[in-house]
Formats: sequence, C-alpha cells, structure tokens
Amino acid sequence: MKTFHLNKLSSKEIEVLTKRPSINLEKTFEVVKPILENIKTNGLKAALEYAEKFDGFEGDKIKVTEEEFIEAEQSIDPKLKTALESAGKNIKKFHKKQFPKNYESKITEGITCSREFRPIENVGLYVPGGSAVLPSTMLMLGIPAKIAGCKRIVVCSPSRNGKINFALLYAARICGINEFYKIGGAQAIALMAFGDSSIPKVDKIFGPGNQYVTEAKLLASIDPDGCSIDLPAGPSEVVVIADENANPAFVASDLLSQAEHGADSQVVLITTSNDLAVNVNKEILRQLNKLPRKDLAVKALENSFTLIVNEIKQAIDFSNNYAPEHLILNVKEAKKDVSEIKNAGSVFLGQYSPESAGDYASGTNHSLPTSGYAKTFSGVSVEMFMKSITFQQLTKNGLKQISNTVQTLAKEEGLEAHKNAVSIRLK
Amino acid sequence: MKTFHLNKLSSKEIEVLTKRPSINLEKTFEVVKPILENIKTNGLKAALEYAEKFDGFEGDKIKVTEEEFIEAEQSIDPKLKTALESAGKNIKKFHKKQFPKNYESKITEGITCSREFRPIENVGLYVPGGSAVLPSTMLMLGIPAKIAGCKRIVVCSPSRNGKINFALLYAARICGINEFYKIGGAQAIALMAFGDSSIPKVDKIFGPGNQYVTEAKLLASIDPDGCSIDLPAGPSEVVVIADENANPAFVASDLLSQAEHGADSQVVLITTSNDLAVNVNKEILRQLNKLPRKDLAVKALENSFTLIVNEIKQAIDFSNNYAPEHLILNVKEAKKDVSEIKNAGSVFLGQYSPESAGDYASGTNHSLPTSGYAKTFSGVSVEMFMKSITFQQLTKNGLKQISNTVQTLAKEEGLEAHKNAVSIRLK
Repeated sequence: MKTFHLNKLSSKEIEVLTKRPSINLEKTFEVVKPILENIKTNGLKAALEYAEKFDGFEGDKIKVTEEEFIEAEQSIDPKLKTALESAGKNIKKFHKKQFPKNYESKITEGITCSREFRPIENVGLYVPGGSAVLPSTMLMLGIPAKIAGCKRIVVCSPSRNGKINFALLYAARICGINEFYKIGGAQAIALMAFGDSSIPKVDKIFGPGNQYVTEAKLLASIDPDGCSIDLPAGPSEVVVIADENANPAFVASDLLSQAEHGADSQVVLITTSNDLAVNVNKEILRQLNKLPRKDLAVKALENSFTLIVNEIKQAIDFSNNYAPEHLILNVKEAKKDVSEIKNAGSVFLGQYSPESAGDYASGTNHSLPTSGYAKTFSGVSVEMFMKSITFQQLTKNGLKQISNTVQTLAKEEGLEAHKNAVSIRLK
Repeated sequence: MKTFHLNKLSSKEIEVLTKRPSINLEKTFEVVKPILENIKTNGLKAALEYAEKFDGFEGDKIKVTEEEFIEAEQSIDPKLKTALESAGKNIKKFHKKQFPKNYESKITEGITCSREFRPIENVGLYVPGGSAVLPSTMLMLGIPAKIAGCKRIVVCSPSRNGKINFALLYAARICGINEFYKIGGAQAIALMAFGDSSIPKVDKIFGPGNQYVTEAKLLASIDPDGCSIDLPAGPSEVVVIADENANPAFVASDLLSQAEHGADSQVVLITTSNDLAVNVNKEILRQLNKLPRKDLAVKALENSFTLIVNEIKQAIDFSNNYAPEHLILNVKEAKKDVSEIKNAGSVFLGQYSPESAGDYASGTNHSLPTSGYAKTFSGVSVEMFMKSITFQQLTKNGLKQISNTVQTLAKEEGLEAHKNAVSIRLK
C-alpha cells in the first residue's frame, strides 16, 4: 500500500484519492447489451444458451426442484445449518424494525391525507456464485423481501455442474423461498427483467454481482420493458480509521478481509499514527502469507493506500468525501464520532467490531452501496422492497378551503381544466 | 375515447391495455447522448451554447441574482403570493411527518446495531418550463429537500428571454432556495450531474421533464461520473374508477385536467355503468370546447379509453396492473377499497377529491411515478432526499457470541481472512 500524508497533498490530489480505480465500462457494455437484447426477444431459450456457454449448464431444467431443496436440508453439515439459522435470526431481528409506518395527516377541516406502504409484488434476487458461493447474501436479500411481504420472490444463482450449493439452498429455505433458478451472470438478470412465457418477469431486481451483472442491472433499469433495481454495485471496499490505540493485528485483519474479496477491491487505512501505519503494514505481510486467496488480496492492496492525518476529524472528513461501503472506526471513543459520519454504507465502531461481524451475523445488511454511491444510496433494507402510495379524501367543505389556492395556481400555470375540476364541483 | 368491455377481452388484450403508448427512445438517445458528453467535457461553456440554441438564452449570467429574487417578491400578484404560501404550508405539513426515525436494536448481550438517516448533501431540482411554468413543482421538490436538511439545493429551470417567472422565483424563496440557474432541458441535467469548475456537481437530481430531460437523467444515473436520480418520469396519466353514483361532469373534468397536460398524456375511465360512460363522454365534448389547451387534450384523448366492468373489484384489479400515476376512486364508499389498491402513485377518494387538489394544495406530492413505475417507485418524499447508514458496536463478549456463526459461514464461503478478523480478536 502506498502511503500519503494528507497535509502534503493538494486539494486536487485529495480529490483523486476519493475516486475509485476506474473500470472499463465500454467493454462490459459491448458484452452485456447483446445478451439482454437476445433474451428480451428469445426468452428462456436464449438464456439457457448463455448458461451453457458461461457456466457449463446443460439441459433446460433450471428450476430447483422440491427434491433438491430436501436433499440440501438433509445433507448440509449441521454446524453450517446452525450458523445459517443463527445469522438469519439476527438479520430478521434487525430488519423487522425497518417495516415502515403508515400515517394520516388532517391538513385542515375536510381534508385528510395519508401515506400507506405496499410491498413490491414480484422481486428477483441475484446471489452471485463465481469465485465464492454466498449463502449469506441469500439471507441478506431474502429476509427483508419476506418481511416486506413481497408476493413472489425469485432467486437466480449460477450452478456448478447443474448443482446449487446446499448451504445456499438451505438459506433460501430459511427465507421461505421456493422459486430458484440455476442461472447466473447477465443472462440471469435479463431473464428476470424481461421474463419469458414460462417465467414471468419481476418488478425489481436486488443483489450484488460482478461488472457484467451490474451493467445488466443498469441497462435493465433504463429499459421501458425492463425493471427497477436496488442499487448500482461495484467492487467492495473498506476504510479503516485508526488512532494510536488500535491493535495493528486487528486493523490488518480487517483490511485483508476486504482485500480478499477480489483484485478490484480497495482498502484504505487512515490514521493519526505513523507508528501504527508501519506496524499495520508489517502485520499485513505476516497475515497475508497464510491466506488461500492471497493472490487476489495482493492485487487489491496494489490499488490501496494509507493516509496519515493530524487528527481524527480530518480522517472523517476524507471518509465522508470517499463515501465508503464499509467504515471501521477503530479509535478510542468511536461512538462520539457517529454524528460526524455523513456518507457510508455500514459503520463498525471500536476494536471488537470487525467488518466480518456485519458481513454475516450481527444483523445489519451486507448488500451496500459501493464506489461512492453511499452519498445517495442506503444499503438493502425492508423499505427497498416496498413503495408508498398517498391517499386523500376531501369533503365539499374541504375542497372549498383550498379552492382559491388551486384555482389561482392552475390559472398561473395555464391549466384551465385543472381549475374547472374544482369550480364545477363547487357550483 | 375508445370503449372496451373487460369481459369481452382476452387476457392478452387486457395486458396490452395496461401498457402505455410507446415512445421512440432511440431518437431521444441520439439527441441527448452528445449533449451529455459535450457538457461532461466542456462544462458550463458547452451548456450555455445549448441554452442559446434551445431557449434563446444569451450571455453567461445564468445564475439568478439576489436582485432578481427581490424583484420577483415585490412584483408578484399578491393573490398568487398568498396561493403559493398557502399551498406551501399544506405541503410542509404533510411532508414533515415523513422525516424518518433512527432506531437502535440490541441484538444480544454485547451487540448493538442501529440505523441513522442523513440528508443527501448536494441535490439538484429540475423544474420544467416548456409549455407551462410550474411554480407548484418548485414547492413539491424544494419543501421535502429542505425538510430532509440537504446542505446545498440547486434549481435549474429554463428562462424566457433570460427571465424566470416571478411565481417560480417566489416559490423558490418560500423553500429557502437561493442557488437557481436559468437553464433547462438535457443541458441542465448534464450541468448538474457533471458540474463545472464554477458550479459543483450534485449527488442526486429530482424533478419531472420531457423525454429529453428524462433520457438525460437516466443516462446520468448509469454514468459512474454522473449522479443518482429520483425516478424515471414519463407522460402524465390518470385512471378514474367510477360507479353509477358518480357525477358525469365531475368525472369528465378530472379526465380533461389530465388530458390537457400534453398530447402524450393518457386518461382511462373504468366504470361499472354504461350510462355513466356515455354521459361522461358527452360531458367531455361539452367541457372540451372551452379549454385553451383543447388541441393537446384532444390528442391525449385519442390515446385514451373507457373500460366497462361488471364490478368495482375488476376495476381495481385492472388498475393495479396498470399502476397509474393518479387514481381517482369516484365510487360511493371509496375508503373501503383502499386496502385493495396495490400499485398507484397518488389516490383520490370520493367525489370531492379532484386530482387538481393534490396537484397543488392538499399537501401530497405531485411528482409521481408514471408509465407503470408505481409498481416499484413512490412519489417524491422526504426520505428520497436522505439515505440511511447502519452502525454496530460489539464488545469482546458480543463478538464471542457470534464468533462460531461468522467463522463457520466465512469458511463455507472460502473467505479465510474474514474468519481471521474474528479469531485474531478472541485469541
């Protein structure tokens, strides 16, 4: 990791550090666009051709059967089963509190307005399965969808030799999900977005993925025949802010647990202590050697950096501009800085709150905005599986109360029929 | 308006009726894409060239001055001033209740997770100004932005001969907004999305617009250098569900107040009564002749239709599939059908609740999802100007409680460093 001193950088140089390493999106577009067009026109048949080409999937039985779910439940390691159930319990506990409240407001005598939430009826969940199988992601998407009350919940995930990992199937079962297709990549997104005579389209797609999946989601979201999406997801990232009290081994373990995600991950250490920076880098080298995904982590560390600052406030300001997916505040009194944090996906306070706690089991969601999108997006939540509708009922007297206002404004905007709709009722 | 009988239609024919008349998006893309690229590279200079070309704007003084705001406040018709203030008051009253609540959840001994909301710092509001000047839209966007606590709120709206309508400027003032640029169309969206050395970019853009504005927003939203957007907006639309008790003149006035928006608007009447359908169509012809925007309304009515059903339940089912921007339930006991409404932007209950009440002054927002997006999107709300961040703090004992779960799942996913981040802390 390169090391920079904030005070020696120009504001232009600081701004560059808040940007992510760029990705060649045009190449991705050229691959993904024809896949979407083909599946939009030819449906499942085309999707199966891509599944065969990219994942070696053979045949047309892409829907997981009841027998496969039962086999998974019976064959899964009991320890893993317990872990999934236990994580599921915490995720459910945290997310249940997100269920939004309806409200009614009596604006004036005779005018009552209200807002009510409704679940999105058909949702598609994408669980990636390229370099790692991710049953935890299944829980993170399926549990809020179920709490929201979505009527139809569809899952897509790539198979290996036509098989879906038992833990992933069992995680789907924990969420109460039965419609599961063995397909991944851009073709899975296209199939859910446009549908087929045998698999109806969904209204909104959720879930992370590689750059092809992300591009497919973005293109589907701007296609009038497509569907909505949760959030744009890019490579994973963490910012660790640490003071001189932090344990270098802990900090290094957090940076590495992000770096092992993929070669395009980015990890950033911001510290007030030169000594800590040196010791963390030593610890990284020590811990790195034992990792099975060492090669990926090494590449990610090449995109990464350490930033030395004078005070924690500077660190937080930088982090707010960077808007990290994950932020670990490994400082003495982490809690008192909470109100200063403006842009981040998920924040971990203190030395015993590693990111992996939130990745799996503390209850918060791990499907989070990356690449600076934390400036405008939240992580996946129950509300993202719902939308609200406003209602209003006016009495004749209520309409009278606002008739001058409506008619004056309608006239100003040149919308005479809007004015008439009031005057005709009050004749 | 054509008339259909639901029971005589095939399910395929019904599905076609739930779709909107299609728009040629490729042509729009070809116009908008170069505008975005040019402004992304050349900033304000390029934006001004388009403002001159499309709106006849001359010079480079696009920022509204303090003097112009004062002139607007002093010159505006007092009746109009009162109307804007009165509408603003109701909008504020309704939207204040949307301010989201933070929560904390004690997951287990030693694990506390919470969620807190933060305003999006920099937002851009687009107020269209082509065929009509829309001070009401200024209130609908500016008031929730202010309640959310956005730090910087930028407005763009096209000028006429370099001037912005007084009511629009005064509406901006009511919202407490001072950064206002005289520019419209795709060039305004590009300027806000990419920024310029003199006008910093925004994080998210809100507001309706024509197909060029919408295309520009969509393209900005999938550009990594661009910004987020509120929702995709298309031509305006209303569904009126009426029974035999409805007053045909009221129903006709509601259909016309939607039809006058533009030639591409769509209005749909669904009724259980043949007589009502006949009488509403007669009333439309009668009221139409007096409208200054008659030509637009006539064109919109050509895209529109009446649907005869046997019972109100069928009407609501159709409406849920259509997912209208506006839904007027002009039936005897409108309130008892509320829970059956699954997809709609804003709903008007009973015979004294015309859409124009909500368009201007009852308090609900009029910036709503069109084209079926009500299946997944809500109208503009305070929460859309905010995002949430999750926080967690674990004690050493708390981490111990979930250490088996985290380590088991991390191992299953092949993420050894995630496992280490826990084990190293519990040594």
